[in-house]
Amino acid sequence: MKTLAVLHASQLVTLAGAPRPRVGPEMRELRIVANGGMLLRDGIIVATGSSDEIARSVPADAELVDAGGRVVLPGFVDAHAHPVFAGNRVDEFEMRTLGASYEEIAAAGGGIQSTVRKTRAATEAELEQQALTHLQRFVACGTTTLEAKSGYGLSVEDELKILRVIRSVAARSPLEIVPTFLGAHAIPAEFDGDVERYAALVIDEMLPLVAAGGLAEYCDIFCEQGYFDIATARQILEAAKSHGLALRMHVDQLTNSGGASLAAEVGAATADHLEQTDADGIAALKRANVQPVLLPGSVYALGKTRYPRARDMIDAGLAVVLSTDFNPGSSPTQSIPMVLSLAATQMKVTPAEGVTSTTVNAACSLNRFDEIGSLEPGKLANFSIFDCDDYRELAYFFGIPQTHAVYVCGVEAFRV
Amino acid sequence: MKTLAVLHASQLVTLAGAPRPRVGPEMRELRIVANGGMLLRDGIIVATGSSDEIARSVPADAELVDAGGRVVLPGFVDAHAHPVFAGNRVDEFEMRTLGASYEEIAAAGGGIQSTVRKTRAATEAELEQQALTHLQRFVACGTTTLEAKSGYGLSVEDELKILRVIRSVAARSPLEIVPTFLGAHAIPAEFDGDVERYAALVIDEMLPLVAAGGLAEYCDIFCEQGYFDIATARQILEAAKSHGLALRMHVDQLTNSGGASLAAEVGAATADHLEQTDADGIAALKRANVQPVLLPGSVYALGKTRYPRARDMIDAGLAVVLSTDFNPGSSPTQSIPMVLSLAATQMKVTPAEGVTSTTVNAACSLNRFDEIGSLEPGKLANFSIFDCDDYRELAYFFGIPQTHAVYVCGVEAFRV
Repeated sequence: MKTLAVLHASQLVTLAGAPRPRVGPEMRELRIVANGGMLLRDGIIVATGSSDEIARSVPADAELVDAGGRVVLPGFVDAHAHPVFAGNRVDEFEMRTLGASYEEIAAAGGGIQSTVRKTRAATEAELEQQALTHLQRFVACGTTTLEAKSGYGLSVEDELKILRVIRSVAARSPLEIVPTFLGAHAIPAEFDGDVERYAALVIDEMLPLVAAGGLAEYCDIFCEQGYFDIATARQILEAAKSHGLALRMHVDQLTNSGGASLAAEVGAATADHLEQTDADGIAALKRANVQPVLLPGSVYALGKTRYPRARDMIDAGLAVVLSTDFNPGSSPTQSIPMVLSLAATQMKVTPAEGVTSTTVNAACSLNRFDEIGSLEPGKLANFSIFDCDDYRELAYFFGIPQTHAVYVCGVEAFRV
Repeated sequence: MKTLAVLHASQLVTLAGAPRPRVGPEMRELRIVANGGMLLRDGIIVATGSSDEIARSVPADAELVDAGGRVVLPGFVDAHAHPVFAGNRVDEFEMRTLGASYEEIAAAGGGIQSTVRKTRAATEAELEQQALTHLQRFVACGTTTLEAKSGYGLSVEDELKILRVIRSVAARSPLEIVPTFLGAHAIPAEFDGDVERYAALVIDEMLPLVAAGGLAEYCDIFCEQGYFDIATARQILEAAKSHGLALRMHVDQLTNSGGASLAAEVGAATADHLEQTDADGIAALKRANVQPVLLPGSVYALGKTRYPRARDMIDAGLAVVLSTDFNPGSSPTQSIPMVLSLAATQMKVTPAEGVTSTTVNAACSLNRFDEIGSLEPGKLANFSIFDCDDYRELAYFFGIPQTHAVYVCGVEAFRV
C-alpha cells in the first residue's frame, strides 16, 4: 500500500458533489478548499480537506507532495479529440494565410482526405510513435483522460488499424483513453461521393468488427451537408446502437442541418461542435438531456468568428462540455487551458464554468463520473498542480505553460 | 575563450541579410539552412552553415549543443510589453465574462487605475520579485530581448521606482531589456481628468529626471480620446525628443484619432496597436518609415474581432512588428508563438512573415539589428531550439509549450 499526501494547495478545486452533470448556476460551484490537501492510497483519493487536517492524519511512511502554494485541480477530461493520424497539415495552414478557405482546400483534395492518404500509408508503429508524441502534450497541459476517435482510415482495414493504435497507445501512455469509432468522418475519395455505398460499408462491415473486437465504446459521425445527411446518419447511428455502442455526433459545424435534433432523437450522449445551432436545436438537446461538447479551438484556428452559443446553452440548463477537438486540420492544440481562455474571451464562459465543463461535465459525457472529474474520496487520484495562486489564472493567462505537475492514479506523469 | 557548436538543427532559421527592416515579399525570406549548425565563441556567432560543415570546424575543446533534429530560431524580440506591475486583473477578467466591458470596468475605477493603486503601494523588492516571475515566462516562450515600459506609477516617485525596477531586473534576468518611459499611460485619478496639469508634470518633472538618470531609451504615450489627445501628445513627445529619448506611441487602439499621422510627424520609431488605423494612416506611416507594432493578443483577450489591418500594412511595404503587449489588463501572455498563431489565424500573416516580424523587424524597431534579430557571424548568440521539425509549427500548434531550450549570449537560459 502506497500512501501520498498532497499538502499546501493554495486552492484545492474539488468539484465534489452528486455524480451527475452540473447545469446552470451549479457550474460556478467548484467547492474550493483554500490551503487544501489530499490523502491518496494506491492511486485512490482517501480524504480531502485543509492542508493542516490532512497533515495531521498522514501516516509516517507516506510520501509527501508539496503543492507549494499552487492550485490543484482534477485532471482535465478531454471529451473530443482525433489524436491518431500521420503527418500534419502545416502546408494547408500556410495556404489559409494566403487566402484559401478550409472548404476550398478540401475541395482540392486537401483537408481530411490528405490526412487519410498519409494515415493509410503509415504503419501501426509509425502511427503509435506520432500519437504518443501528441499524447505527451495533452498530459503536459494537465489532461488525464482523453476521448480518442478513429476516422482517418475510412476503410475497414485502416479504421481497425487506427482503433488498434488507440488501444496500444492507451497501454503505453499515462492517459486514460476512451475509444470512439468515427468511420463516418468523411466519404473516402474512392467512393466518389457515393454516400449510400460507403454507409453500407460502415454498417455491414466496420461496425460488426469494431464491436466484436471491443475496439470502441462510442460511435461518432460527421453529420453535415456533403458528408452524412440526417437520414444516413440516423441509419448508421441506429446500427451502432444495435451493436451496443453509445453515441456521439459532430453536428451543425458548418451549417444548421438539424443535427442537434437528430442527436436528441437517437439519444446520443453528446452533440459536438454546434456552431450553427439555434434556439430550436438548444431546446431539442435540453428535452433529451444531450450534452453539448463545444470546441472553440477549431473556430479560432480556422479564423472564424461564429462561436457556438455557449452562454445560451448554459442559461438553458444544458450540461456543457468544452474540449480541444485536437486534430491536424482545424484545431492543432492539446491544451485545455487554451480552451478555457477561448471560452472566457470569445464565448463569455466564466473560468468556473470552464473548469466544470472540462472536468465533471466532460467525465459525465464519457460515463465515467463515478471514477474521475472531481477530487473526492473513492475517486482516482488524477490531478494537476498549476503554477498559479488562483484557478482563474488558467483562463486569464493564455498561450503560456502553467502546468507544474500531473498525476494519474497517484503516479507522477509530468513535472516541470 | 568558450566555444559552442550547435549541430543537427532540422532548420536553422537565420534571417541573415542587410541590417534593415524587411518589407513586402522580403518578409517571407527566412534564409533557412536545412540540417544546419552554428559555431559560437564567447557568446558571439562565429559561423553558420550546414551541420556537417560546422562539425568539421569544431575545435577539440568546444562544447556541443545537439539540436536533435529540432528547429533553431533567433531569440524572439518582444518590442512592446508592460512587465512591471503589482497584482493581476483576474477579477476584472471574470467580470468581463459576466458582461462588463473593458471601458465600463475602467470607468468604475478598475482597469489601469486599479493596477496603478497596487503598483504604488508595492515596494521595489515586491515589484522586482513579481517582474522576475513574469520575465521567466518570456524566456520559457523563446524571447531573449524585451522592451519594458513603465506606466503603472503615474507620479514622479512611482514612475522612477518602476524604471529602477526595470533596470534592476534587467541585471538579474537572462533577458536583454530595453526600457521605455510611459508616464503618459493614463491620467492618474488624483488629477481628476486635468490632462494639462498632468502633462506639465510629465514634461517638467518626470522627463528631466528620467533622462538625467539614463533610465529609459524610449518615451511612449497612450494617444487616445479620454487619455492624451493629439495636441498634448505632440507636446510630450517633443519634450522627450529634446531630452534625447527616441519615441514609440500607442495609437488608434480604441478610436481612429489621427495618432498614426502624429507618429509620422514626430518621427516615432514605432506606432503601436493601430486596430482602427485606415488607409490614410497606413500611407502616413509609410511616408515617414514608422514601423507598425501590432498586438493581436490584446484584441483576442478583450474578445474583440477588429484586428489591425496587418495584410494591408505588409502589402503597403511597412516593416511590420508583432509583439505580445504583455500587461495585466488586456493581454496576459508572454508568448510570441501565441502571437504568431493569432497573426496567422486572425490576420492572415504567414508564419514566415510572423517570424520576420518578431525577430529582424522587432530588433530594428529597437535600434538593435546590428546585434540581434538574426543568426549570422558577429551577432549575439541569442537563439532558441523548438521541439518541432518545421518553423511553421510554431504558428500552427497553439497554446502548447514547444520550447526545448533558450540561449542568451551563448549561455543556456532555459531548458525543458
